[in-house]
Amino acid sequence: MKEEINEKTTEKQKDEDAHTVFIGLKPFMNYVTGIVMQFTTRGATEVNVKARGKFISRAVDVAEVASKRFLENQIKVDNILINSEEFENKEGRTVRVSTIDIKLKKV
Amino acid sequence: MKEEINEKTTEKQKDEDAHTVFIGLKPFMNYVTGIVMQFTTRGATEVNVKARGKFISRAVDVAEVASKRFLENQIKVDNILINSEEFENKEGRTVRVSTIDIKLKKV
Repeated sequence: MKEEINEKTTEKQKDEDAHTVFIGLKPFMNYVTGIVMQFTTRGATEVNVKARGKFISRAVDVAEVASKRFLENQIKVDNILINSEEFENKEGRTVRVSTIDIKLKKV
Repeated sequence: MKEEINEKTTEKQKDEDAHTVFIGLKPFMNYVTGIVMQFTTRGATEVNVKARGKFISRAVDVAEVASKRFLENQIKVDNILINSEEFENKEGRTVRVSTIDIKLKKV
């Protein structure tokens, strides 16, 4: 959990005012409604759904449910990027983790 | 497992001669070497890495390791599609599952 919070802080600095939702351990619908709110009440025209490692599957689920069920014909998946991050774990071993960035956009 | 095999058969018919790797429960490196072989010994110029549900994270890992570690500067992620499939489960409830299709391409 600590790592997720740290990541959130750094990413927030990088993204500044961008509308970004980081997928983690919260209840599934928190993320979906978070995205819907960004588009409907906070005037976002683009929202980035980001996740790392095992949360990538969840990010895809969240993006699909938001764009196909809640905001059908209003938003669409605009672009998807995948990448890798490398870092040293506690034992000093280099660990690679995959990341995803799904850009949702107003139609 | 039965479901995975059925899916493989149908997908294989659809894709015909296309080079496609379906990510499931096999050891991680089986998929990576499968992709590398498609490009290096079977003359593929494109390979589609496909997965459903919780295997989506794994598909991203496989695509990243193949393109960044094994065939660096030789292949790249060309396009990523996400989608949803709906089907009825044994209890007659409609279930939604996300899918991913990562297209790897020779540089």
